[in-house]
Amino acid sequence: MRDLFELTEIAYNSLKYDKPVDTIVINKIKDTVLSQGYIGIAQIDTIAGDLEYNAKKIAKYIKFADSVELEAVIFPEFALNGYPIGDVTKRHNIMLSETKKWLSALAELTKKTIAIVGFMEQSSDSSKYFSSVAILRYGVVQQIIRKSAISYKSACCDINYQIPYKEQINEPLYCGYGITVGDEIYNNNLYGYNILDNLLHKQARLLINCSANTYKYNRQMLINNSYSYLATTYGKPFLFVNHSGANDNIIFDGMSQVYDAKGNLIARAKYAEEQFMIVNPYQGIGKIYPLPSGLSDMLSDNADFSLNYEPDLERVYKSLVLGVNDYFSKCGMKRAVLGLSGGLDSSVCAVILADALGKENVFGVSMPSHITSNESKSDAEMLANNLGINFVEAPIRSMIDTTTENLNSLFIEVQKKWNVRYKKSFTPDNIQARSRAMFLWGVSNEFESCIPIATSDKSEAYMGYATINGDMSGGFAPIADITKTKLFALARWINKNRTVKDVIPESVINKRPGAELAIDPLTGKPLIAEDALMPYEFLDEVIWRIENKHQGYNDLLNANFVYEKNNNVPKVQKIEWLDKFYRRMSTALYKWSIMPPFVMVEPHSINKLDYYQPITTSHINYKGVSKDYISSVLM
Amino acid sequence: MRDLFELTEIAYNSLKYDKPVDTIVINKIKDTVLSQGYIGIAQIDTIAGDLEYNAKKIAKYIKFADSVELEAVIFPEFALNGYPIGDVTKRHNIMLSETKKWLSALAELTKKTIAIVGFMEQSSDSSKYFSSVAILRYGVVQQIIRKSAISYKSACCDINYQIPYKEQINEPLYCGYGITVGDEIYNNNLYGYNILDNLLHKQARLLINCSANTYKYNRQMLINNSYSYLATTYGKPFLFVNHSGANDNIIFDGMSQVYDAKGNLIARAKYAEEQFMIVNPYQGIGKIYPLPSGLSDMLSDNADFSLNYEPDLERVYKSLVLGVNDYFSKCGMKRAVLGLSGGLDSSVCAVILADALGKENVFGVSMPSHITSNESKSDAEMLANNLGINFVEAPIRSMIDTTTENLNSLFIEVQKKWNVRYKKSFTPDNIQARSRAMFLWGVSNEFESCIPIATSDKSEAYMGYATINGDMSGGFAPIADITKTKLFALARWINKNRTVKDVIPESVINKRPGAELAIDPLTGKPLIAEDALMPYEFLDEVIWRIENKHQGYNDLLNANFVYEKNNNVPKVQKIEWLDKFYRRMSTALYKWSIMPPFVMVEPHSINKLDYYQPITTSHINYKGVSKDYISSVLM
Repeated sequence: MRDLFELTEIAYNSLKYDKPVDTIVINKIKDTVLSQGYIGIAQIDTIAGDLEYNAKKIAKYIKFADSVELEAVIFPEFALNGYPIGDVTKRHNIMLSETKKWLSALAELTKKTIAIVGFMEQSSDSSKYFSSVAILRYGVVQQIIRKSAISYKSACCDINYQIPYKEQINEPLYCGYGITVGDEIYNNNLYGYNILDNLLHKQARLLINCSANTYKYNRQMLINNSYSYLATTYGKPFLFVNHSGANDNIIFDGMSQVYDAKGNLIARAKYAEEQFMIVNPYQGIGKIYPLPSGLSDMLSDNADFSLNYEPDLERVYKSLVLGVNDYFSKCGMKRAVLGLSGGLDSSVCAVILADALGKENVFGVSMPSHITSNESKSDAEMLANNLGINFVEAPIRSMIDTTTENLNSLFIEVQKKWNVRYKKSFTPDNIQARSRAMFLWGVSNEFESCIPIATSDKSEAYMGYATINGDMSGGFAPIADITKTKLFALARWINKNRTVKDVIPESVINKRPGAELAIDPLTGKPLIAEDALMPYEFLDEVIWRIENKHQGYNDLLNANFVYEKNNNVPKVQKIEWLDKFYRRMSTALYKWSIMPPFVMVEPHSINKLDYYQPITTSHINYKGVSKDYISSVLM
Repeated sequence: MRDLFELTEIAYNSLKYDKPVDTIVINKIKDTVLSQGYIGIAQIDTIAGDLEYNAKKIAKYIKFADSVELEAVIFPEFALNGYPIGDVTKRHNIMLSETKKWLSALAELTKKTIAIVGFMEQSSDSSKYFSSVAILRYGVVQQIIRKSAISYKSACCDINYQIPYKEQINEPLYCGYGITVGDEIYNNNLYGYNILDNLLHKQARLLINCSANTYKYNRQMLINNSYSYLATTYGKPFLFVNHSGANDNIIFDGMSQVYDAKGNLIARAKYAEEQFMIVNPYQGIGKIYPLPSGLSDMLSDNADFSLNYEPDLERVYKSLVLGVNDYFSKCGMKRAVLGLSGGLDSSVCAVILADALGKENVFGVSMPSHITSNESKSDAEMLANNLGINFVEAPIRSMIDTTTENLNSLFIEVQKKWNVRYKKSFTPDNIQARSRAMFLWGVSNEFESCIPIATSDKSEAYMGYATINGDMSGGFAPIADITKTKLFALARWINKNRTVKDVIPESVINKRPGAELAIDPLTGKPLIAEDALMPYEFLDEVIWRIENKHQGYNDLLNANFVYEKNNNVPKVQKIEWLDKFYRRMSTALYKWSIMPPFVMVEPHSINKLDYYQPITTSHINYKGVSKDYISSVLM
């Protein structure tokens, strides 16, 4: 006999594809939820700004909830509008007036089941809005709850448009539902009263929080602790409903949760995936879906840098696949073309793309130049074969030759006026990288719904070790938030845990990364990136310490790096690497400003939504100066 | 006999280049300012984050003010740190601890003259800061004033780090100076008391406002009116000191102002230019430097769209030149290379670059393809000769041929797997644009301190009518905030008002713009942009109405456009253009996200600092739908 949760999953699998739910399944669920108090949690994935898409999805679950006679069905904050929409309402306030029409129509659909739907409610200033939650039932809007406090730490830039509503204190509760919106519950005393005290005073029998929460380590830890605490403190069941899926750069991590009146977790939906779940918070009926392996560990233990990424890799991989899938589908795209170099970055990207878009929708192009080794070529082809993606080899040699010849003539002319030609330049390397990008953009121009992929990673982005209009150019950058050492771990994880094992050739993971753009004059072999930069293990710990611990130059100099435990690093060497790090980072700011979109899967990122640094701040002195130096300069 | 203002200008012209001021000039100024109440206004141009550069500049003016025995010298808000620095302090809080050291050293320089210097004052949370103003005198910090209210409308993203200080009410005034910081004066009653009332109660004899104000039409109007009002209301002289210059995308518009106790404007510094000015606010001594022609008109009259841009063009041109100059110098760059097509966009860019960087530092490259007309080639060369910039012709034909050949072979392979090849694609057009960018980036890689220029304009950006990795690629985009019709007006203005007249050939201004990337099959001539898009006069008014009036689809359909007054536009044609506008704008969002930096010179912009719209919101229905449609969809 299938339980309620299995039945709901079966129903969801039909609803997901807009198919009618089997009558037998409906009746079985109906029989199970005969007693009062069963509530549907619709952890939906929305498209920001697409009212029609979102409303259709909401309508579907309202109808289903009604068909099985649930007490209520709850949607997240901003369910109808999707999130984030940035500054859209500033210039296009039709978004808000249309929202009202769609909400009315959704209300008209409702019968006995209460539907609780988050939406943007236009204020008297037509470009501004409240984050509101509508209670719909019997064909009409029964009540509207408005968020009373807005976090100023939002990554979503909406603080100019979202306004807090402060006058809700005297409205009665509908059906005893004490509804709060987003993080207003953390701002308890902001308006001279505690919002939860107030709800309890009005005899809430159930505390509900509709949210649009994005993935952050610390936030998740906070949520886990605080919801349990709130349920216990107030002695009422607590129900938290979140978005799932990715919009642009942001992942909504799902994990909607239900706590009983004693603060015990009785239900938790999946990580970042769309899900419809039925629970009974009064009777403690629910199911706790597992978190990605290691996520629960990570929540409590993230104090030191470690190269043991293993516990976090399932979450990371799922998030990257989700990010690609949602970006493509929400932009109406379906195909990806990428250069396969036989290196780590492009190999991991290919696997992610295959899993996100389907292998038939991915084209790997090997574009060997005169520097490319035979091993790289065969690694690229082997990876494509293992994955089953489309593959073609397109030599770029003649294009490089023509371009180089043309450019050399041009340089001679320019040099006549500008006698500042570099003796040794990166020009030839960049010609290769840009020729490849030219091919990929060509394919994307010529074939329907196709996006070219930028394959550069986070370590390279910090070092500016990627070519503008070359490997850093593309319509999406799947791994731009992942450092190189974590990518190595991810490649091994993929080989071990993906349904089809060992798709990434061992030689790809074992070789030391290099762009194969230039020959090292010392060895006569292609230049190794770590020789040009610094060991990735060292580099990635620098990045981690700056992003997570906000350490400065001197902290880093004095810190004991993992890399130093296993290798002898003279202080003069460490100073050279740190100097190089800050110098390269300072001049990489322009590159950061034109990075293609990528999902943020780490707690910190160089995505502008998490960290914005103006390009003209490239002169910041990160080392600091002595008092004597200052005096000498100002004298 | 030279007056105080001429003498100060002479002194400034020495100080500017770090030269000693002539002793005779110093003594003459000293004689003039013998009586009390002469104050120096240092409207400086800073480099964001470069403490050493800014401190040296501040020290220079402190020393000069002391040498002529001024009562005080006043610097803007954030003078020591520069502005904006974005999220820098989140990860690199050394910026704040170093600030303290530099400030102490500046204090040590002071003697009798009071120096008032804005800086970021680290709070107890080490990544956060107050916007503070230090009063320095006799070698020490006498007092610190902290900003009490922060605008949440800042373009500078610093609301996460800057914190308001609310406990200043009881501190006595130093020397009767009633100091306020930035826009806190507009938030009079935010903390239960009026900050200016409070200053008056404490017997301020002079009201001072240190600011970091960016250019906005409306803001300027507000400032003009409110400062005069405040001076009159409180019966005290009012002194406003602002930054000048550009940092990244933002122009600080200078125009520091002094009002006497009756609210009369007695002094105003130049628009957006660095300046040192001496005034006596008690005695009404000051000089009102002229605004760019028309700026004062624009302040009060900007209600309707007009193609008469003339009054605003001096301000626009100065701002664009300043933006280029400051971006290059603050990034340590000095040369620019750009493609000269013989068209309007690249011609105007070339003039701006020549004026900003010096003609010897600009290289124009004509890169004709098989489509390029002889007229375009000669126009490009004539412009370069008129301007005196470097010029070279570099044909791209062989590169296009090789690339096309290579790509065609690749397409045949790809088509075997993906049978979704476009019958008619933009691929050949894009190959031309990308080949040109390859050349320009090549030059920038090969020659010292050289930035390639993206020449696309705002009308094209809205339409996505620019090639990724092609003409929209570059290290800086001088005219990305200027619409096409305004560019035409600007070109005429340049020919009329620049010292060397008529540098832009008439034929450039007279021809209808087209990218010369493709042949129109109907005419056999290069495709005209307006035929592919819509008339620029119409397009630019659509943009203006959306940005300034927040009009939606139906408002636009019903509005009476300037273009319609002079041309017969059937409704079906207008609908076609509007539909095309919204369709193209929706798919241009990705291009907006990777635009090179450009200064914002208009009140509204597609720069992320002014307007951010997530790419996945491309499905927004800007037309709206009927109630019947909604019902049919949700049934």
